[in-house]
Amino acid sequence: MGGVLAAVIPEPGARVEVREVAEPELEENSALLEVELSEVCGTDVHLQRGRLAGVPYPLVPGHVSVGRLGKIRGRMLDVEGRAFREGDRVTFLDVHRTCNACWQCLVAKSTTRCPARKVYGITYGFADTLAGGWAEKVYLKPATRCISLEGVEAETFMAGGCALPTALHAVERAQIPLGATVLVLGSGPVGLSAVILALMSGALRVLCTGAPDSRLEAARAAGAHATLNVETHSTDEREEWVLAHTAGRGADVVVEATGAPAAVVEAMRYARDAGTVVVVGQYTDHGEVSFNPHLDLNRKHLDVRGCWGSDFSHFYRGAQLMADAARAGPWSRLRLERFGLGRANEALAAVASGRVVKALIDPRA
Amino acid sequence: MGGVLAAVIPEPGARVEVREVAEPELEENSALLEVELSEVCGTDVHLQRGRLAGVPYPLVPGHVSVGRLGKIRGRMLDVEGRAFREGDRVTFLDVHRTCNACWQCLVAKSTTRCPARKVYGITYGFADTLAGGWAEKVYLKPATRCISLEGVEAETFMAGGCALPTALHAVERAQIPLGATVLVLGSGPVGLSAVILALMSGALRVLCTGAPDSRLEAARAAGAHATLNVETHSTDEREEWVLAHTAGRGADVVVEATGAPAAVVEAMRYARDAGTVVVVGQYTDHGEVSFNPHLDLNRKHLDVRGCWGSDFSHFYRGAQLMADAARAGPWSRLRLERFGLGRANEALAAVASGRVVKALIDPRA
Amino acid sequence: MGGVLAAVIPEPGARVEVREVAEPELEENSALLEVELSEVCGTDVHLQRGRLAGVPYPLVPGHVSVGRLGKIRGRMLDVEGRAFREGDRVTFLDVHRTCNACWQCLVAKSTTRCPARKVYGITYGFADTLAGGWAEKVYLKPATRCISLEGVEAETFMAGGCALPTALHAVERAQIPLGATVLVLGSGPVGLSAVILALMSGALRVLCTGAPDSRLEAARAAGAHATLNVETHSTDEREEWVLAHTAGRGADVVVEATGAPAAVVEAMRYARDAGTVVVVGQYTDHGEVSFNPHLDLNRKHLDVRGCWGSDFSHFYRGAQLMADAARAGPWSRLRLERFGLGRANEALAAVASGRVVKALIDPRA
Amino acid sequence: MGGVLAAVIPEPGARVEVREVAEPELEENSALLEVELSEVCGTDVHLQRGRLAGVPYPLVPGHVSVGRLGKIRGRMLDVEGRAFREGDRVTFLDVHRTCNACWQCLVAKSTTRCPARKVYGITYGFADTLAGGWAEKVYLKPATRCISLEGVEAETFMAGGCALPTALHAVERAQIPLGATVLVLGSGPVGLSAVILALMSGALRVLCTGAPDSRLEAARAAGAHATLNVETHSTDEREEWVLAHTAGRGADVVVEATGAPAAVVEAMRYARDAGTVVVVGQYTDHGEVSFNPHLDLNRKHLDVRGCWGSDFSHFYRGAQLMADAARAGPWSRLRLERFGLGRANEALAAVASGRVVKALIDPRA
Repeated sequence: MGGVLAAVIPEPGARVEVREVAEPELEENSALLEVELSEVCGTDVHLQRGRLAGVPYPLVPGHVSVGRLGKIRGRMLDVEGRAFREGDRVTFLDVHRTCNACWQCLVAKSTTRCPARKVYGITYGFADTLAGGWAEKVYLKPATRCISLEGVEAETFMAGGCALPTALHAVERAQIPLGATVLVLGSGPVGLSAVILALMSGALRVLCTGAPDSRLEAARAAGAHATLNVETHSTDEREEWVLAHTAGRGADVVVEATGAPAAVVEAMRYARDAGTVVVVGQYTDHGEVSFNPHLDLNRKHLDVRGCWGSDFSHFYRGAQLMADAARAGPWSRLRLERFGLGRANEALAAVASGRVVKALIDPRA
Repeated sequence: MGGVLAAVIPEPGARVEVREVAEPELEENSALLEVELSEVCGTDVHLQRGRLAGVPYPLVPGHVSVGRLGKIRGRMLDVEGRAFREGDRVTFLDVHRTCNACWQCLVAKSTTRCPARKVYGITYGFADTLAGGWAEKVYLKPATRCISLEGVEAETFMAGGCALPTALHAVERAQIPLGATVLVLGSGPVGLSAVILALMSGALRVLCTGAPDSRLEAARAAGAHATLNVETHSTDEREEWVLAHTAGRGADVVVEATGAPAAVVEAMRYARDAGTVVVVGQYTDHGEVSFNPHLDLNRKHLDVRGCWGSDFSHFYRGAQLMADAARAGPWSRLRLERFGLGRANEALAAVASGRVVKALIDPRA
Repeated sequence: MGGVLAAVIPEPGARVEVREVAEPELEENSALLEVELSEVCGTDVHLQRGRLAGVPYPLVPGHVSVGRLGKIRGRMLDVEGRAFREGDRVTFLDVHRTCNACWQCLVAKSTTRCPARKVYGITYGFADTLAGGWAEKVYLKPATRCISLEGVEAETFMAGGCALPTALHAVERAQIPLGATVLVLGSGPVGLSAVILALMSGALRVLCTGAPDSRLEAARAAGAHATLNVETHSTDEREEWVLAHTAGRGADVVVEATGAPAAVVEAMRYARDAGTVVVVGQYTDHGEVSFNPHLDLNRKHLDVRGCWGSDFSHFYRGAQLMADAARAGPWSRLRLERFGLGRANEALAAVASGRVVKALIDPRA
Repeated sequence: MGGVLAAVIPEPGARVEVREVAEPELEENSALLEVELSEVCGTDVHLQRGRLAGVPYPLVPGHVSVGRLGKIRGRMLDVEGRAFREGDRVTFLDVHRTCNACWQCLVAKSTTRCPARKVYGITYGFADTLAGGWAEKVYLKPATRCISLEGVEAETFMAGGCALPTALHAVERAQIPLGATVLVLGSGPVGLSAVILALMSGALRVLCTGAPDSRLEAARAAGAHATLNVETHSTDEREEWVLAHTAGRGADVVVEATGAPAAVVEAMRYARDAGTVVVVGQYTDHGEVSFNPHLDLNRKHLDVRGCWGSDFSHFYRGAQLMADAARAGPWSRLRLERFGLGRANEALAAVASGRVVKALIDPRA
């Protein structure tokens, strides 16, 4: 009987290949997800290029995905203790095995830094099982945390995708005051979700810098009051633009979501005195950058907060927002492009170039 | 009738001179302080060398001082509404004229960034009045906030001096958890006060790096569990040392109090994942430094907090601690050296070289 | 030359009278406001009935008002240091004389508890000057903080009125998590503004209980997802209703804005475990109420926060929101009723009975 | 081979009996603890009297205990991943089975309200296994979190006992500012630990009310600056006493640790405006109490925080403090009394009457 088709990165730098593999055996309290949509995010581009440490190639990418529970063995419970049933539409937290037993989990209570955690599609490899969303089916191991998406459009949810909990964590950490002016650096998926969530959290005005123009247009459609293209404006021009939009003070809150080390320093410079900067764009090592700790940090009395990963609460609250048509509105207006498994390399290229706001993988296409 | 002797920095880079000036006329609700002790801090060294912007030379340095109210015209009230009397021993908040009317004061509530504030001995010059502590008398303008020091040893209070509110603000901002391991970078007056205050705030272990050995000895006498000389240990050795004292994790909280830009990056590196860094040592512009925002900040999920200036609450609470013999104990054990007005240049040199832990100015010596 | 008409409460319990008084002389840096609109709030009803302590009868009520600066002597500056000009449309912070010199201001930093503060229309009496908005003109003493309302509809701003900063302070103190369910107890002006502001701050669902039906309808029009009439439902029914809307857990955040002591206990009971309760409805002493500290507080691990008064930041940020047409939308849809000075007693009755959502005083009507 | 002796409460209200039972079989990754010391706390008195809901009688009381690991099957790891060995001295977190899978754990992150958690000696009964410390041995189920106590005096650790993590959680939640005046209501074990921990967290002065005099003496020996006997002073006298010690303002922070509902209201009354109250004394239902929400809460702008249970971090940090001789000092000076298993009823009576500060159970006595 039929195997399962999956798109695989064979090794760092190699092109994605579609392979057919046997359907996994289910352990007690596990399930198979029949994937409707998965996505291609910036991390996947880095994965394919071999830029991340600790990745067990070959692997099936795709960390956040939506689908229907095809087969359940034993019980899969939601966070309110209800058992899922076969046929339910769900997503699942891509982070697995947070241990709740180590110093980082129990004493520091910073579970996103738990060394035991594994991420579907990133640190679970092909050898582990079918553990990525670029496949017809994903094996949901025991203790994988599913969230019901009954009544939610798969495509709307995936318009948020993995960027949604990441941005939600960043905006939560930003503690945006009612009426604040927020500057988002970066107009990729995390930046766009940060724009939407900042407005939802009480920001009165959100500014966004990034590129290309199509993404800035998306930022404005999502509610940004003003945008600036970083490819056509120098850092001095950007600073001037920020000051012009903030009564000369700088932004109350800056969310850095770019991937470029220099943006972290810009974030500090564009923040007002005693403002807050959240750094959520530096998930990959792109080297060093120089700053002036007197002028950029100490004298400004800044709060600069690194923001790593996300936990179940971010994913759950993101899903709750997406289940509300009004709240999901700005995401549903983002333009997405679908690619079948066989076109995964094209999808990666489209994301790498910024040509699309977001590329989805549809294993049934 | 007699003039007032004051030590004056005539211009940037010039040697301090003692001058005799006429006693100022008192406005309504002002006073003259007869100085018992003032101090020489790192800022004074920068003042003399012309490293600070916006200083109205010539000026009389000495921002934190202790003395007796010699003459009061009208009323000077303490924070509880009691009127001071001539002869009372007091200190006064060196920051004056925080406006409580600007955006920074009223909306951001970050009064240490109020652009209207003036600092005795730093941004009040000789032209303004006798507004620095290196003098027989200081003119306390209306609305200067005095704090009673009845029953407090002048020398013990000055062992904290201006470093006390600065360090108190930094430690407050660090939000040290009970039982934490705190690393203080720097063994100057702010670093030493940070060591003491971190222990007082619930730290179980405090580590301190700095130089020279005499100051590290003072850190240990003040309660530091271990110290390391930065002049004889490379940054790699320092990192190893910190990890060895923190179960390989890094410190829960790092307070940077050195003045060297590189120390800010070290602070991030020596903090544990999801730890807190307070940057309080960068009061002067010493240029740029390079860091890796992925490794040093984002992936570590750090909180990095610049800490600028101090407000009345820090000064007041510092004075309350100093009025308690047990709490003041660690400061009373610091070795201080007294200099008369005529030896101010020597005092500056002793501070600049780190030869003394702290130099006091005694205008009656 | 013409006097100024003002509505006066002569003494506790007495009917409001319109009197004509001489226009006040202006001190340096003061102004006269030509009132366009003032309002009648619950506090005014208590004022008229003599329920508040420390009120210097006779007085002109009306604490929050909008108008044009008719005459300025010297300079009145806004928070960004710009001088107002005669003819500018403004509102002003009704709280005056926060001292910034007492323990409460400087050490506790809880300026809304400063004992020196005075409130226009409440603790400034007729003897002080024309210090209430139920008059053709209000005398703005030196250091009164005005905020420009150029381009803002006077009626929209007054739809928020004094309830806006009060509710904003409460919602700020509630620290609403993104996606939370918030329950607002009370559908008067503070409750309605709390509904709007909770949604603006990231609440996914807002529930509101109150009366009469017309106000609950206003709550729904302002965005509340569900409402319940407290006059026709018992406390058991209310609890059941809250649990039904919160998956049986209770609300994440409850804002009490009713005036009834019993509502404070209901607020604790309707909150989820480890939830937050903000108590902002108890501005007047209506006696005691009984609760079970084990069941209602300790075992629930609740945060219960009293919220008193508001400061400039709340007023300023409220005005910023009102200057944004989209943000001001929900307020602009509230139904208001205007009364001339001569109908102030009618206005008080309409507010006391809850017949109107809000009554405005239009001195030119 | 011998059975295991254990003291058992057969049913609500019945006297404790010593029984001999068979040693339990060990599951994989479990252990047997050979008890050196357990304790009798207020909760045990309520247990014996049948005042707690959900207790599976018969049961062996004793939730916090110290002993040596007698037998380990499989692996028991500490929080840093090190395996314990037979013979190690340890304590263990009495809370077991926090699920890390429910809404309360994962979304609210308030794990002390997880409905799945079980407590050794309270909600694990005799039918479950040997799950209480009043026995020669305790069965440590898989996933029980042990903490090494090598080099720590068993009696010193037990002087803190279960009160230590409870008080530590309360003091953590109190966020005591450096230099604050803290009032602790209650001089039982939780109150005494709160006195010590408040001082350790930066309080400058700690006041304590309670009874009898022997316990107040213990409070002063532990560092309290002043104490008041509640049996010989009326609430008016107490209020006057608090105001006299706080410049008429009330305490910055009040920790309620009494068990009496009325103390919660006193806590609010004795706190200063904008102060903080932590309620940690209401672990059992003792009925209702009446308060004035205007005067006692809203107008005071108070923060009132219920504090339920404790988690691993509190227990772990408590153990870290106890492993430091200087920090453990105040506890080592508390007078304790030891009782063998056969004298458990006497021990309960001694605790109920307040005759002893703390009663220990020594199963080998």
